[in-house]
Amino acid sequence: MKLSHRKDLFAWSVFNEERDLDFHSYLWVREGGNVVIDPLPLSAHDHKHLQKLGGVDFIVITNSDHCRATEQLAGQTGAAVYGPSAEQETFPVICDRWLYDGEEIVPGLLAYQLNGSKTPGELALLLEHTTLITGDLIRCHQAGELCMLPDAKLADRKLAIQSVKRIASFPGIHAVLTGDGWPLFVHGGEALHHLARSL
Amino acid sequence: MKLSHRKDLFAWSVFNEERDLDFHSYLWVREGGNVVIDPLPLSAHDHKHLQKLGGVDFIVITNSDHCRATEQLAGQTGAAVYGPSAEQETFPVICDRWLYDGEEIVPGLLAYQLNGSKTPGELALLLEHTTLITGDLIRCHQAGELCMLPDAKLADRKLAIQSVKRIASFPGIHAVLTGDGWPLFVHGGEALHHLARSL
Repeated sequence: MKLSHRKDLFAWSVFNEERDLDFHSYLWVREGGNVVIDPLPLSAHDHKHLQKLGGVDFIVITNSDHCRATEQLAGQTGAAVYGPSAEQETFPVICDRWLYDGEEIVPGLLAYQLNGSKTPGELALLLEHTTLITGDLIRCHQAGELCMLPDAKLADRKLAIQSVKRIASFPGIHAVLTGDGWPLFVHGGEALHHLARSL
Repeated sequence: MKLSHRKDLFAWSVFNEERDLDFHSYLWVREGGNVVIDPLPLSAHDHKHLQKLGGVDFIVITNSDHCRATEQLAGQTGAAVYGPSAEQETFPVICDRWLYDGEEIVPGLLAYQLNGSKTPGELALLLEHTTLITGDLIRCHQAGELCMLPDAKLADRKLAIQSVKRIASFPGIHAVLTGDGWPLFVHGGEALHHLARSL
């Protein structure tokens, strides 16, 4: 498990051959229970590392295409699973709680709903006002820059653009940790603004 | 193979369990022959991708601990192998050319010698004045920041610091692509200055 820009935030990654980029999962280590976001399968080494860092109490899934190894990890650890409320009728994984726009998941971690993406109400998570963790809508194809999911995949481009512009308007973001593609650990807010202006 | 911050520059990576970080290799696609730096083993998929991007004509090794899959790749492709001149007496891989400080490897790609590292005369490469590619001495342990190889591994800390400060003094660097740990695709020059000031 790789250290991020914060001493309490880790990532693990799997290279995706179809898209020629890495998928990432994130772990926030905190008192009161660690949070994992969009968990990919863990190697034996990373699983051991996770245990050493305190295991996992909460798994947050940003959208139904990012369930990944959630069921396996929840089964092994007993972690509670949180999913996007807009998908609750059809979500492929049993969730203990559904997250709504603006909701505090645990102290310091907020959920925001993005509209118009390929799944209804995809979540983006904001950690202590400064680190944004995204699922699919906001992503990185060329390192150092952010892009939006390709138009062909969007349910409603206008709504998607509104959602990106809203997130970009949040002050103080400096890291944007993408689920897909190189994370932006510094100057992520600038990249978000640049993306929002380009849409 | 993952696109970097430049359309002509790619990376592939392997997670290292001992250090809990990714090792990276880089490919510069150019007319006149592609250059690969410190090649890790390639998956079948990445090997096919490499071929699609024009294969490889030159392999540059920054230091003898980064030979990695050079012999295999050179054997498969017939690429010429370039190594650091300071290691020519004992280098574990046969090289077609030894690189000296300040030398132009191919047009637009310069080699610089770093002293005091764990191997003599480790190379750092500067691509078109803006992208620095490093081997071991300059690395990333915490994302978004650069650090120097731990003191215990250095042959001569004073010389190593001098070398880092010299590289940091080059104007116009904006990306620092580390062999070990998260690459810095933006604001890498700032991170280099920060590192140099901290030493």
